[in-house]
Amino acid sequence: MDTRPIGVFDSGLGGLTAVRELARIMPEEDLVYFGDTGRVPYGGRSRDILVRYARQDVAFLRTFDPKAIVIACGTVSTTALDVLQEENDIPIFGVVAPAAHAAARVTRNGRVGLIGTRASIRSGAYERALDHLRPGVRVTARACPLLVPLVENGRFQPGDVVAETVVSEYLAPVRAAEADTLILGCTHYPLMKPIVGAYMGPGVTLVDVGEQCARWVKRQLELDGLRNERPGAGRHRYYVSDSTEDFTALASVFLGEDMTGEVEQIDITAY
Amino acid sequence: MDTRPIGVFDSGLGGLTAVRELARIMPEEDLVYFGDTGRVPYGGRSRDILVRYARQDVAFLRTFDPKAIVIACGTVSTTALDVLQEENDIPIFGVVAPAAHAAARVTRNGRVGLIGTRASIRSGAYERALDHLRPGVRVTARACPLLVPLVENGRFQPGDVVAETVVSEYLAPVRAAEADTLILGCTHYPLMKPIVGAYMGPGVTLVDVGEQCARWVKRQLELDGLRNERPGAGRHRYYVSDSTEDFTALASVFLGEDMTGEVEQIDITAY
Repeated sequence: MDTRPIGVFDSGLGGLTAVRELARIMPEEDLVYFGDTGRVPYGGRSRDILVRYARQDVAFLRTFDPKAIVIACGTVSTTALDVLQEENDIPIFGVVAPAAHAAARVTRNGRVGLIGTRASIRSGAYERALDHLRPGVRVTARACPLLVPLVENGRFQPGDVVAETVVSEYLAPVRAAEADTLILGCTHYPLMKPIVGAYMGPGVTLVDVGEQCARWVKRQLELDGLRNERPGAGRHRYYVSDSTEDFTALASVFLGEDMTGEVEQIDITAY
Repeated sequence: MDTRPIGVFDSGLGGLTAVRELARIMPEEDLVYFGDTGRVPYGGRSRDILVRYARQDVAFLRTFDPKAIVIACGTVSTTALDVLQEENDIPIFGVVAPAAHAAARVTRNGRVGLIGTRASIRSGAYERALDHLRPGVRVTARACPLLVPLVENGRFQPGDVVAETVVSEYLAPVRAAEADTLILGCTHYPLMKPIVGAYMGPGVTLVDVGEQCARWVKRQLELDGLRNERPGAGRHRYYVSDSTEDFTALASVFLGEDMTGEVEQIDITAY
């Protein structure tokens, strides 16, 4: 039993799709979220810059004495997880291992599609994890740099010709490779599920990295005796590095429900 | 006569379209460019964050003892020019006044279209400048948040259905308002000229903020006796806040020619 909060961070608001899952399956846990809205997006940046930003994100969350930290960002998970784990004495969870395990488990034909940001795809992290779990698996990976701006501009509704065209261009090689499983390797992508699912067809299983990561974190906390078993709903606090204006409305889109809880702006460069 | 360099900065690479114009009309001047690629894009950020970033950009450029600084970024020009001018004892030029003067001069029917980032449009800076120069002018302004990601992903070629669809959606109200002049209020937009020009038709004059700003700067330096009259080609130096990898190739797209000159990465948060 450990009543300390779970820290969660992302480049911006996409990580809230992981918060939604964490809150759904562990409603009693306190959560502290940091979204680096002053420096979003992370997906096109170099490894050096990503490591620097991620270290600051973790340092800020550690001021809350968390029992664990969840990297709810595909880009940081693929490029800085090892560094962050080495430097910290609390569990740091990324999205790669949970998603790779899920994909290795659900694929029937051993052909897995993967979409993510440029930095995520460049890292090769999913391929390494999958190859270890299921040798011989064939991964068709595609960097999708326009999906984050499209989602952040609210363009993810079926019928949006721009979103549909971009999705079909990015995914054509994945469909051609006859993948039966597709890893949505960025926490922004669950909002694109209707368009992506329609393009890939009903025979393809979509693996949501935030959802898989939330389940993984729950299991690990249980194994380590770190769950909060106090009855009642946990407290959710939100921090961002740019203005909190409009945050509540936008956050509700990613959370899939009206956002409740405090929101505060902080200076991330001070950490 | 003043042989000190001209400092130029932007959130990323878009400002290089202004560098191209500065170099074209003042080939003998030394130029120092800073692109804040570690924190690009600026267009969706709040005023507070923009002012903080812009102060650091100027502080970095001032280490080169420039005779003037050009804000080759529509977003900073519309939201932080006054602050930067107050805090600095050298001329600081933005893109708003030059573009507003050009639009006021060329419009025949007094109807001017304006496209820019969210922060630029929210500022109302172009409307204020135009209203002062030509009272009664009617401005139809549109925030175009997807144009920067499209340009940065190389999607600005005629025939690109995504770019053409997005441009036509953004510009439909401008065409409906029968504007005869359109201000391209972001230094990324000159690359969209072929698509924008085709959509608006041959009767509409496109005002390129970088080009107008370069002419304005030249005139002001001449009036103040600050031009470099030394014969020979000026030295061009480039600095960025993220990795310099791929910079040369990408920069050449914005410069419209092969990039020459040194490129170096710096830590902008140290300024």
